Amino acid sequence: MYKLVLIRHGESTWNLENRFTGWADVDLTPTGVTQAIAAGKLLKSEGYDFDVAYTSVLKRATRTLWHTLDEMDRTWLPVVHSWRLNERHYGALQGLNKLETAKKYGDAQVLVWRRSYDTPPPALAASDERWEGKDPRYARLKPGEAPLTECLKDTVDRVLPFWNEAMAPAIRAGKRIVVAAHGNSIRALVKYLDNISDQEIVGLNIPNGIPLVYELDADLKPLRHYYLGDSAAIAKAAAAVAAQGKS
Amino acid sequence: MYKLVLIRHGESTWNLENRFTGWADVDLTPTGVTQAIAAGKLLKSEGYDFDVAYTSVLKRATRTLWHTLDEMDRTWLPVVHSWRLNERHYGALQGLNKLETAKKYGDAQVLVWRRSYDTPPPALAASDERWEGKDPRYARLKPGEAPLTECLKDTVDRVLPFWNEAMAPAIRAGKRIVVAAHGNSIRALVKYLDNISDQEIVGLNIPNGIPLVYELDADLKPLRHYYLGDSAAIAKAAAAVAAQGKS
Repeated sequence: MYKLVLIRHGESTWNLENRFTGWADVDLTPTGVTQAIAAGKLLKSEGYDFDVAYTSVLKRATRTLWHTLDEMDRTWLPVVHSWRLNERHYGALQGLNKLETAKKYGDAQVLVWRRSYDTPPPALAASDERWEGKDPRYARLKPGEAPLTECLKDTVDRVLPFWNEAMAPAIRAGKRIVVAAHGNSIRALVKYLDNISDQEIVGLNIPNGIPLVYELDADLKPLRHYYLGDSAAIAKAAAAVAAQGKS
Repeated sequence: MYKLVLIRHGESTWNLENRFTGWADVDLTPTGVTQAIAAGKLLKSEGYDFDVAYTSVLKRATRTLWHTLDEMDRTWLPVVHSWRLNERHYGALQGLNKLETAKKYGDAQVLVWRRSYDTPPPALAASDERWEGKDPRYARLKPGEAPLTECLKDTVDRVLPFWNEAMAPAIRAGKRIVVAAHGNSIRALVKYLDNISDQEIVGLNIPNGIPLVYELDADLKPLRHYYLGDSAAIAKAAAAVAAQGKS
């Protein structure tokens, strides 16, 4: 039996300001740092250990991983960064306040953008200064690969090649892996692993900074999954995520 | 022309306590963190950028690198950890206070252990709880590869394969590289690059947290090298290192 541990980054400055973040490279809040440290302490106290770590190219996930590894005395572990583990790209909504956006367009429209599986928000223009495609961290992407917006389906489509080509082979080779990523890149993995429907996945909330453990069989099919830690705290964190963006 | 940047980690807790450190995995002091942050700010303000970073498996070097990359907005860079970039192993002296060791054995003997090129300090026993060979970070080393003590010559001998097999090919491939390492693993690289004699290298002091830039020609032969930053601060830092361990 294999184990896979997924961690959504701790609270970010734009989580706190209730703004759409996507690929904007915002940092953790002090609360987010505390959550990341707690995740590391919890994993250590529960006897978890890892051989390789995966994260996105965004600092809120990287820093969550660093704090986690630090608490586990595993700062020396190999870390693989991939843009494929980035948060869902939020297009022209990136940087906008969720509440104001909901007031302007209505809860229903924002809910479509946030929670429809295949309707992306309005795209950024490639000339928009918010577009990240020219950042050196994306320099090795093929033309057209850096998105201007994404629906969750798009995110799933670019996360899965990384699962198939990097993570799944590592697990099969006996590597114990931990992934520090984002709400929607983790949803993409969870959807694939548990074969969750397009309708159902959009209602599934991943709490910040709480390790999600998957136990997998020899074919990497899930036997069961569970969050580590205090169940009341987990429920509260998931409810907080669900409440975002309502006016 | 290629550029290579070497950074010795910031001040560690055992630098401060004047204890022989070697492979003991001690952390940075607050001053060490400040030095690492300053190194990153300096590299950024001087227009440096990197494609890949190398460091040891010891946290004082890793954390120095993390702070440096953080200041440069490069937390997403690939980082390669290698035990070959570790500090010189200090054998049975690890953990001992330098001043007390000098009082007990005499300045002359300690100077031999510290500054002879090919006389190692007394070896640790493999059964000694201070020996790191059983730590999981060294699990992939071949039998006998994890040292029980090292002279500088031993350190040079295990650093150079990493230069030849990892760093030099990366530089030739056009990668801009930064290395966060230790006094003696950096000496090993400097000795090789500048073809410094065995006698001379033991008197060469590498200051903490100050970027050392090598400009290399197409054959990776040094054209020149220099420290970045304020020259008075550099001289002071080097003198502080030279003064350690005298009674």
